[in-house]
Amino acid sequence: MKKIHIVGLGLLGGSFALALKRVLPHIVFTGYDNNQKNLEDALNLGIIDEIKQKADPDTDIIILSTPADTLTFLLKECLDNINENTLVIDFGSAKSKLCKSVEDHPKRHQFLAGHPIAGTEYSGPKAAKSDLLENKVFIICEMEKTDIHLKAKAYEVLEALNMKIRFMDPEEHDSQLAFVSHLSHISSFMLGKTVLDKMEDDRNIFDMAGSGFASTVRLAKSSPAMWAPIIQENKKNILEALSMYILNLSKFRDKILADDYEGIYHEMEKINKIKDILDLK
Amino acid sequence: MKKIHIVGLGLLGGSFALALKRVLPHIVFTGYDNNQKNLEDALNLGIIDEIKQKADPDTDIIILSTPADTLTFLLKECLDNINENTLVIDFGSAKSKLCKSVEDHPKRHQFLAGHPIAGTEYSGPKAAKSDLLENKVFIICEMEKTDIHLKAKAYEVLEALNMKIRFMDPEEHDSQLAFVSHLSHISSFMLGKTVLDKMEDDRNIFDMAGSGFASTVRLAKSSPAMWAPIIQENKKNILEALSMYILNLSKFRDKILADDYEGIYHEMEKINKIKDILDLK
Repeated sequence: MKKIHIVGLGLLGGSFALALKRVLPHIVFTGYDNNQKNLEDALNLGIIDEIKQKADPDTDIIILSTPADTLTFLLKECLDNINENTLVIDFGSAKSKLCKSVEDHPKRHQFLAGHPIAGTEYSGPKAAKSDLLENKVFIICEMEKTDIHLKAKAYEVLEALNMKIRFMDPEEHDSQLAFVSHLSHISSFMLGKTVLDKMEDDRNIFDMAGSGFASTVRLAKSSPAMWAPIIQENKKNILEALSMYILNLSKFRDKILADDYEGIYHEMEKINKIKDILDLK
Repeated sequence: MKKIHIVGLGLLGGSFALALKRVLPHIVFTGYDNNQKNLEDALNLGIIDEIKQKADPDTDIIILSTPADTLTFLLKECLDNINENTLVIDFGSAKSKLCKSVEDHPKRHQFLAGHPIAGTEYSGPKAAKSDLLENKVFIICEMEKTDIHLKAKAYEVLEALNMKIRFMDPEEHDSQLAFVSHLSHISSFMLGKTVLDKMEDDRNIFDMAGSGFASTVRLAKSSPAMWAPIIQENKKNILEALSMYILNLSKFRDKILADDYEGIYHEMEKINKIKDILDLK
């Protein structure tokens, strides 16, 4: 492993490079970002060693860590142009459409569909942290479709990063992520909107906000440039999760309207079991 | 200030005592809790020095930190029985009904309606922490109705705890708290329920959950014994906040259904300003 090229020098792409540089310092990182400021920041922060719009022919791995709606185009372009020793990995948060888009590509075996389950509400190279990926889950979809020798390159870096590898098919991935990640972002954004709307009457409302509100609304700080495309790419599953969520909220409201506080108590008590499940993780 | 009596030895009552004991170690704490286990824990953890079902006649301050639906009864009982030098403070998360319930009580001036904006998703004396209240907001409602000499006792302890005092009328308090606290808890509980329901099909779904989900669902670990009564006591305002939230979620779903990702982008971008507001705090 000598050279890695990163397209999209934001939180994930940047954190990936910073972490690998600590443990595999001999690797050369090249990279590109459409945003000139990100490009300069990435170079200044040492995320990449050299700006290159196109990966060198001797690149071992190309990482695609751009917004979800750009990946189909970028992946095809990459596969069309790479040498046979280069592996392309994407970090996208939606996998079905992307995997489908290259299923008949002659170089499909040079692609690994990946998704590191890590992030913060911040974005851009300045938000990158060398420990962001440490011990986090890395999901691989359709692993059997990737060439075994190229797959070894992926394992080399994922193991160097101490990531926990999980295998899923793309549909299962997109359905589960809609519930445990994408829905959280929407619930948080809409909570933020509801309180901001209320703030138009009460200027000081945020004074009253405690740590509970800060925690539930944190994801509303996330980047629209990243999240609008994820919603687009995972529309079907997100609509399912969001509809179930709205239905649950509406039923809860019905219980309040009916003064059914015993029902509310028992419902909350059942949901409390999430404590044990999360603590197991 | 010699003696403080605490009714309800949970997270808030316990944290209050532990914090004060660090800075005003000469104060004697007595207290009571309906739960025998809490009572023993509070004694063993040094939250109280002595178990007493009734406050001694020479008690300076009685703190009521029990579930919201018990406060009306307890407050009246307290006021009926105290000497003229005792101040009663409640820590309830809903203030209108409680303040209304004692507005004609002959000892109304011996009551201070308070609400420390602090908490965690845990409960009971073992969850109490001596730094929980440090630098947090303490809301006082209808301050003008409390006797000036007794109020001085409240200031003495709140200042010793470095709390930031804010004044609000009870209706304003209940309306604002519905949005910045009570709604967060409901949104979090229902997010937990939605994912738990989904888990019935996908056993491993929590494996995929990252820090974002953990943050938005954290409050779903909260105590139903505390939260069902808060919903009961602040029903009107919570229904308003919850209905606005459901409406915002439904409109967002409509945007997804219409493939209006540009609209989604701009909406998220507007909500991002919550970042600046929260960072100011």
